[in-house]
Order: sequence, then structure tokens, then C-alpha cells
Amino acid sequence: MAPGADKSPQYQPSQAAHVASMLNGDSTLFAQGARKRKLIISDLYHSLLLLSWPKFILFFITSYFSINLIFAVIYFFCGPDSLDGVSRINDLARFSDCFFFSVQTLATIGYGHISPLNFWANFFVTLQALLGILFVAIVTGVCYGRFSKPTARVIFSKHILMSSYNGKPCLILRLANERLNQIVEAKITVSMTQNEISKEGEMTRRFHGLKLERDFSALFSLSWIVRHFIEEDSPLFGYDHEKMKEKQVVILASMTGIDGTFSQAISARRAYSYEDIQYNKRFKDMIFWNDSKVNIKLEYIHDTIDLKDG
Amino acid sequence: MAPGADKSPQYQPSQAAHVASMLNGDSTLFAQGARKRKLIISDLYHSLLLLSWPKFILFFITSYFSINLIFAVIYFFCGPDSLDGVSRINDLARFSDCFFFSVQTLATIGYGHISPLNFWANFFVTLQALLGILFVAIVTGVCYGRFSKPTARVIFSKHILMSSYNGKPCLILRLANERLNQIVEAKITVSMTQNEISKEGEMTRRFHGLKLERDFSALFSLSWIVRHFIEEDSPLFGYDHEKMKEKQVVILASMTGIDGTFSQAISARRAYSYEDIQYNKRFKDMIFWNDSKVNIKLEYIHDTIDLKDG
Amino acid sequence: MAPGADKSPQYQPSQAAHVASMLNGDSTLFAQGARKRKLIISDLYHSLLLLSWPKFILFFITSYFSINLIFAVIYFFCGPDSLDGVSRINDLARFSDCFFFSVQTLATIGYGHISPLNFWANFFVTLQALLGILFVAIVTGVCYGRFSKPTARVIFSKHILMSSYNGKPCLILRLANERLNQIVEAKITVSMTQNEISKEGEMTRRFHGLKLERDFSALFSLSWIVRHFIEEDSPLFGYDHEKMKEKQVVILASMTGIDGTFSQAISARRAYSYEDIQYNKRFKDMIFWNDSKVNIKLEYIHDTIDLKDG
Amino acid sequence: MAPGADKSPQYQPSQAAHVASMLNGDSTLFAQGARKRKLIISDLYHSLLLLSWPKFILFFITSYFSINLIFAVIYFFCGPDSLDGVSRINDLARFSDCFFFSVQTLATIGYGHISPLNFWANFFVTLQALLGILFVAIVTGVCYGRFSKPTARVIFSKHILMSSYNGKPCLILRLANERLNQIVEAKITVSMTQNEISKEGEMTRRFHGLKLERDFSALFSLSWIVRHFIEEDSPLFGYDHEKMKEKQVVILASMTGIDGTFSQAISARRAYSYEDIQYNKRFKDMIFWNDSKVNIKLEYIHDTIDLKDG
Repeated sequence: MAPGADKSPQYQPSQAAHVASMLNGDSTLFAQGARKRKLIISDLYHSLLLLSWPKFILFFITSYFSINLIFAVIYFFCGPDSLDGVSRINDLARFSDCFFFSVQTLATIGYGHISPLNFWANFFVTLQALLGILFVAIVTGVCYGRFSKPTARVIFSKHILMSSYNGKPCLILRLANERLNQIVEAKITVSMTQNEISKEGEMTRRFHGLKLERDFSALFSLSWIVRHFIEEDSPLFGYDHEKMKEKQVVILASMTGIDGTFSQAISARRAYSYEDIQYNKRFKDMIFWNDSKVNIKLEYIHDTIDLKDG
Repeated sequence: MAPGADKSPQYQPSQAAHVASMLNGDSTLFAQGARKRKLIISDLYHSLLLLSWPKFILFFITSYFSINLIFAVIYFFCGPDSLDGVSRINDLARFSDCFFFSVQTLATIGYGHISPLNFWANFFVTLQALLGILFVAIVTGVCYGRFSKPTARVIFSKHILMSSYNGKPCLILRLANERLNQIVEAKITVSMTQNEISKEGEMTRRFHGLKLERDFSALFSLSWIVRHFIEEDSPLFGYDHEKMKEKQVVILASMTGIDGTFSQAISARRAYSYEDIQYNKRFKDMIFWNDSKVNIKLEYIHDTIDLKDG
Repeated sequence: MAPGADKSPQYQPSQAAHVASMLNGDSTLFAQGARKRKLIISDLYHSLLLLSWPKFILFFITSYFSINLIFAVIYFFCGPDSLDGVSRINDLARFSDCFFFSVQTLATIGYGHISPLNFWANFFVTLQALLGILFVAIVTGVCYGRFSKPTARVIFSKHILMSSYNGKPCLILRLANERLNQIVEAKITVSMTQNEISKEGEMTRRFHGLKLERDFSALFSLSWIVRHFIEEDSPLFGYDHEKMKEKQVVILASMTGIDGTFSQAISARRAYSYEDIQYNKRFKDMIFWNDSKVNIKLEYIHDTIDLKDG
Repeated sequence: MAPGADKSPQYQPSQAAHVASMLNGDSTLFAQGARKRKLIISDLYHSLLLLSWPKFILFFITSYFSINLIFAVIYFFCGPDSLDGVSRINDLARFSDCFFFSVQTLATIGYGHISPLNFWANFFVTLQALLGILFVAIVTGVCYGRFSKPTARVIFSKHILMSSYNGKPCLILRLANERLNQIVEAKITVSMTQNEISKEGEMTRRFHGLKLERDFSALFSLSWIVRHFIEEDSPLFGYDHEKMKEKQVVILASMTGIDGTFSQAISARRAYSYEDIQYNKRFKDMIFWNDSKVNIKLEYIHDTIDLKDG
């Protein structure tokens, strides 16, 4: 942490948008200073799950070659008499054979045209065989972990609308299930967080749940319009853009459900700063019917139109 | 999407039955147009989970032979001096030996009667050994994924009844646990969806939950009759077949629970269009007692009888 | 199903005890007639999870020897010239070598002192190597599935008490966590089921939830006494032994929670027939303190004492 | 259990602190006497999950060498003619070769410079190959089990505060998410347990839930201050330090949620004895803003300051 990093425990007017963008983006970039001290050693597995497939394959290949290089060096220094069948033309040829012998050992192929002769070669073969079992076990585990990681592809609209529905003022956002499969028992919670000061003078950021018109969907396949009616008991009652800015309002939408195909728990979420709110709009239709066939235009998810144009 | 595919954002009278049949059937056929763009590349693992076992075995065999064929070609083009012990009678015999050498390498058998001689053969053995580890890891992961996929075998009655129970009008459906094991903490939700138009002129398909007589079962082993009493606060109050058709009513039943044997979360669901509703019927008994032994006739699950015949 | 098996769709007076004992025991014995038709083919994996470890090991050994025997026969019939290094003394010695060659191939050892010579031997080696990968994948998957199966060791008291607490009549049962680890977010539901007849003349077995004094425990480590006060709104209000028998009452207790050590969802349950109810007793203490060390006597879990002796 | 261990079924004044420290510490040390009888045989897998990585690796290496030693002895006693290629210089050299042959067999390398000659060597190779498959399967399963074990790193403040917020008396504790990732759908329950005696004279330890200002957080990334207002319906209403001590109050806080990155259920908990309560303090701020960058000082989690100093 740079010196003077912690100037003040107060929230500043530009923070809500920053918080929202951090929450939507890569969480690993969030609050770096404190993070570094702890996680580097322990969470290798979890890091491997988060790598992209190309990077994971690269990591796997690099490990494989590194292990084999290390053992090639070891077998090489065991001397020319430690391995039967190894080339004796020159050191390079012998090192190369040591490397390929290591490959055949780690992968448990063991053709046998090269084989360990003396105690030390046999000893390191024993170690490498042990390592080979562990290596295969770990690769298998990580591959399965990557495969079975639940992958909801739920898109939230970029904007949240402050508008009206059936004549009542309401806050509206839209979700779409990009996979178009069946998300079962889908639940959504929307909460707002704002700056508040207690009577004891403590400055905190408090959360308030927002009551939704419908917060549960037995089956969420295509799209879902979520509405919060801004009635008198709503924490947003009487708020306009100025007050949102003053209180540094951030709105959090969080969905959980069960993938109907694989029965895995899935979740998705998005944060909206007060700058992401649009007023007096409604979402453009994204579901269309053609001879009783349904079409969903996922590219319309973020599109809004003025209320009067509807 | 064909030109003119999105004629109108309105629901048409034949859609409810279509939606219901799509939801009950293969969800991958649902809303194809939008789906194709995204999923082909990324979801290989999930596709492999959904294949039938014969198709999965076929896919596995095909991959295995393909990998070996590719490496057979590579070893063949490394030349006759790259592999020791390979047949030199003619090209076909040599190619055949290259193929079998590839098999012994991929599966890490390595008898050694054929073994790599020069650098390039050794190099490709190194690559194939790497691929072999990944191949085994992936096959293991996919097999486990297929095995451990929760498999509820809950059957829903084909029809939903609009009838009466204890003199009160109600909507009735029936579930049976085909496995006859213990489903713990079973919950069921039933909701209806219909066409509605807001005061702002927005046409939406809205969901309404239906309050159930009993929506929870600590233990669901055999069959379960689910009832919604159509009282004044029910969204179905005053609905007859005509109104159901006009509003394009679809009723969704969704069950979740925990497999008591394997402690896995399971779920099942079924959609009913207004055409699947039968009036003034009740379900035929499917549980019979014989000297304190219980018999359940699963083949009766869909059978209904007239109320007066009960 | 034997002819005449389904004499009557009515419950008979001896059934409650039978149902309770079935629910507590091996669920696979429940309602056999209907079950057999469906599950034998498909649920091999789930059956393997439920085998005891000795039986599972036996199954694994049997499969291993069977596969090797089959391939030994195949290699034997490929003829004496198909395998290099095989014994030619007599057919028995050759068959024995074929078997051991099969072992070395399936397990991918491949010493190479026996190796495939002609096309057919190589072809079947190719198939067996394929089978070997699948065999290892399946064994690995089943082992992990067996290991990771959540194993709550929650003991329910054998009897349920109809007694009083703080002067109010109540139904009492006791659980103990045999593992003495931390079960987090433990929830318990108790419901009763009895015979009822609707106005339409339909005979059903209906469930009623029983409201509990405390149905949630943030942490369940040792023992838990669960109480339902029998007030006017209780479905058991006014019931005595005679009425319980007449209505064939069965009481179901079902616990779910999260294993605090492994974060796995766990569940346990027990059914009580009206014959399992004891009147005017209380449970014997099972937790004892010795110099601020706690001791739990799990063997007292089922013990009750008369209320006056307390 | 030592004789006289169970002197009295009563709670003694020093117990609350002891219970709290046991619940926070290693649960395997809790109530040892009863535990030992049951778990040693069955829970090997679960024990392996709980070992530290160095101990697990050590266990794995020990098993590997033990199995190989046992088979080395077996092959040695099969006699000098049972293995081809084995050293015949002296018994030590032969035993050493038997050991390395065992390694090459268990790890399925099978170079072939040593190979089984007679029936018994082949027979034990068959057994060892079988064991090798099982060994790899188990190691793979345990590695994956260890990897995929959910690991919440939620820190609870060491002390719980009895103070006031907005002028109202309340109980306050603080959590921080040490990983700084997104914990979704976080729920917290706080309950208190105290000694109570029923009218029937039964001495029990009863649980009471404490109603929280906010018990749910859609997103818990950094820190969370949990408050219970001590109003008239609170079980802590009117309690001071003396009464807490008399009733042997223990307060349990338990958090559950979903890891937003891996969609795994996670949980954490902490117990506070009445001695862990601080009066009229508030927590020191731990979140600081620097040019719209957030910094969390995890080392401040336990720090409190006097209310007036705030």
C-alpha cells in the first residue's frame, strides 16, 4: 500500500460508479493491497480453475516439460552407466535420451529400450513414478473441476430504469438467459446501498432490500423483467438523480437458481451505480413469435425506448 | 433467422400448447435461432454429459481412433529409421505398426518391441504422452460427470384436473417417484402464466404463483397429489376453458428435493397448456395394499376417472 | 406381482407400523413389484455407491478377472503365432501366458517380454487399451463417488414421547450427532400422516406439518431435543393411543443441514408408527460435565425415564 | 473415559468459556470419550481431506513405499527363477531389484528389463496391477476431494460488543471476507444458548435466535457489521455481565453463502462466551478510500475503540 493511501474513511462523490464497475468486473482486482499477502501459496487449484483454457493448457505443458527437464538433468548426472540403452555418442545425445527416458517414466509408458541399471537411476525412477501418479491425479482433478464449474450465462441489462408500470412508479431491470436452457427455482434479490451516518457519528454504508413484484420464477428460460414498485415504504421513495448522487446509491441485483439440465446451483449478479439509471424508459421487446416458434433477440437486451414511443 | 421471422411481438392462439410441449421436451430445441451462435465451441463437456451412453461410447471410440490415426501418420512420415522394431516389408505393414505403436504410447502400455529411435520419433512420443495424460483425465472427468449427474425419475401426470376436493373447486395434478426411493425435503411450486397488457400498452406474459394445499413433503417416496384450491384470491378464479384459451394459459409445476440415498439436489418439472386440463375428473388410485405390503402401479399415473364414478 | 395382489385400495390397521419400519430400513425393499421392471439396467453406478466396501472390492476384482479372462481366450484363439514370447510348451501354459499378457495390457504395464506379433493380436490390444482407459476412468469415478457421498451419522431416538414440558402437553423426540462434528444450519421438520376420507369419497393419506418449538439450530454438535406443543391448532390435539391406531398415524422426522467440516449437504430421517409412542416419559440425560469437559453417552440416546422419576 | 468422569449432569460456572473455545477450535477434540469407538475404521477418506498438505503428501509417500516393500518381499520369496533379468549377485541386490520391479509394476511403467517368469510372479503381478488401479483411483479421488473442499476465509471479530447504535442498545459483531472475493447470498444467524430449568425439573441448555437488523447480504465482499437490537422481546433484554455469567451464556454466529467464483456453498461460524463481550465500544474502521480505490485493513478486524472516542 502506497504511503498516504488511507487518507479518509469517508466515501467520496465519485465512488458509487467505481464500486459498481469493480463489482461487475474482475473481482480479483478488487482491493489488491490487502489481498496479496495471503493467497499466492494456497490457492493454486482455484487459480487453475479460473485460467482460460489456452492458459491452462500452456500451464499444463510447461509443468510437464519442467518435470521432465529436471529428471533429465538428474538421470544425466547419475552417469553414463546408470541407464541401459542410452546413447553414448556425446553428452547432448545422452541428455536427449535421458529426457525421453524421463518422459517414458513420468507417463508410465516404459518401452524398455532404455531402462535403469544402477541403484540411483532406480531410486529416481521410483520418485518419478510417485510424482507421475500425483501429476496425473492433479491434472485429472483440475480438469474435472474446470469442467464441472457451474456456468450460468445470465445477462443483466446495462441500465436500470426508473419508470412506471400500470401507472405506478417503479424500478425496472431485465435479465436474459443466454443459454436458453431451463433455470429452475430462480430467485432474484435487489438491494440498494447508500451512505448513512448514525447518531453516534459512525459513517457506514447500509444495505436495504427492495421488495420485488415477483422475486421467484419456477422456470427462467428466456428473459425476465424485474420490477420494484417505489411506494411509501421503499427506501428509494422520493429519490431523484440528485439525491441518488448525494447518497452515492449503488443497486445490486443478484440471481440464484438451479440449472435444470445439470442440477447445479448457479448464480449471477450485477451492480448499478446511480449513473446507470435511465428515467422514463421501457425495455425494447426481445421475444418474437413466428408461426408459434419463439425467437429471442439477445442483442436487444440493453435496448430501451421512451415510454411514449412504446 | 429467416427474413420476416419476427412478424409480431404478440402471442397467438396456438402458442400455449406449443410452449408447453417445448418445455416438456428437449430444451435444446427451444429458440434455436439465437442459440446457435454461442454454444458450439464452449460447451463440449456439457454436451458429452447429455449424450446417451451408446453415443458417448461411440464418441470416445472415435476420438481414440482419430488420435491414433493422426499419430500413426506422423510416425509414418518420420521415416523407416525413426522406430526400432517396425515392419519394413511394405508401407502398409509399416503404417499398421506405426498405428499400433501409437496405441501402445497413448495408452502408456509401451511393450517396447517397437520403440522410438531418433529425435523426431521421441519428440512426438513426448507430445503423445502429454496428450495421453490429458485424454485419460478428460475421459475420467466426463465419466464421473455422467455418473454423478442427479437423476430424478419423477413422473408428472399428463393432464391437470380442474375438479373439486372436499366440495371446493380445485386444480389437481399428480406426481410419482418412479425410483421409489426417498426424496427428502420435496418442495413443489405451481405457477400460471398468461398474456396481459399493461396500462402503458406493454404486452407481457406474466407469472402468478398458485397457493397450494401442501407444497412441502418431508418424504416423497411413492406418489403425491398436489392441489390448488381456486378461491377468490386465485388468479384462476372464474376461469373456464374459453378464458384459458383467450389468455393462453400455461401452468408450470416444478419440484425440487434431495435424493435421500445420495444427498444430491434433484429437480423435475412439467408444463401444461390449457388443452391439457381435464374437467370434473379425479385420478385413479395407484397405491394398493396387500397384507400390509404396498404396491404402486406406476402405469396408472396418467389415468383419470369421472368424479361420479369414484 | 402375484394374482390378487391388489385386493383393496384401503389402508388396514396393521399398516402404520409396517410403513414406519420400511421407511427406516432399506428403501430398496420398498414396493418391490413395481420397482424391478425399471432399474436393473440403468442404475449400475448408483448401485455401486450403495454396496458395502467388501462387496464393492469383490465386484471390482470380479470385473477385472472377467475382462482379463475374456481377452485371454481371445488372444489364445488368435493362435500361437500372434504373440511373441508366449510359452509354447502346452495349451495350458500358453493360455496362462495369454492371461498374464492381458493383465499387462489392461493395466498398461506392458513389460514387453510378451508382445503382439500379428494384426489380430494388435487389433485386440487396441480394443483392450481402450477398455483399460474406460475401466480406470470408471473405477476412479466410482471410488470418488463412494468417498464423497455425504455421511450424516445422526441417530434418532427409537421412541417418540407424548409427555409435557413446562406444564404443556407435547410430543418429544431426540437426535444425537454420532460424529460429534459440527452440523451447521440444521433444520428439522416433523410431520404426521393419517388416513382421511374426502367428501367426494376419495380415501387418501394426508400429511400435516407439526409446528416445532425450535426447528432450526445454527450448530448441532451433540444432541437435540425436538418438541411439538400439542395446542388447539395441532393436528394431534385430542389424540390418544386409540385414535392414533384408528387413523393409522405415522410421524416423520426429517433433518437436513450442512457438514461444517466438508460443507456438504446432509440429511437424515426416521419414521415412527403410533406403536413407537411412549406416554408420560422424558429422555434420560446423555450429556455430562466433568471439570468443564463435556461427555456425551451416545448409548443413552433411546433411554427414557418416567416423568415423576426425573 | 476415566472412572467418575460423569460426576454431575449440571453445568458449572466455568463452562461457557470452555464451550466457546472448543467450538471455535478443532472440533475433533470435542467430546473425545464417546468419539473414539466409532470413527477410526470408517472415515479414512474424510481424515485424509483434513490433513495438511505436507502430512497428506507424507501419507501418500508412506503408502506408496509400504505397498512396494510388501510386494518386494513377496517377489523375493517367489525365488530367483521367478523374475527374468533380476540381479543374482547377492540377496540384497536381488531384493533391491524386486523392489524396483514392484515400483515399475505398481506405477504400470513396465520397462521389461525385469519381467515375471513363472506362475507365482505373474499371479502377484496380476494382484499388484489390480491394486495399482485402485491406488491411482483413490489418490485421484482424494486429491480432487481436497482441492474441491470449499474454503471460506471469513474472519469473525474476536469480541462481540454490547453497545448502542442510533441510540438503541445493541449487540454488535463484525465479519470480514479475507479472500475479498464475492460471497453471494450470504446469510447470518446469531443465537444465544443459556442454562434453563423446566417446571418438570429438567435442566437443559436452550437456544434462542437473536433477531438481526440485517441477516442477509446479496453480496459480501469486504466486511459486514451485524447488529442485534436488544429490545423488549430480545432474550438478552435486561442482561448484564453478572446475569450472563450466571446463565452461562454462549453466543453463536454462523454464516452461510455461495462463493461467487466457484458457486460452492460455504460456511463459517464462531462462538462467543460471556467473557468475550466488550461493553460500550465500537469497531475501528477497516475500510479506507484513496482516490476512489478501496483498501481494507484486515489486521484491524478485532480492534475496538471507546464509543466516545469514535
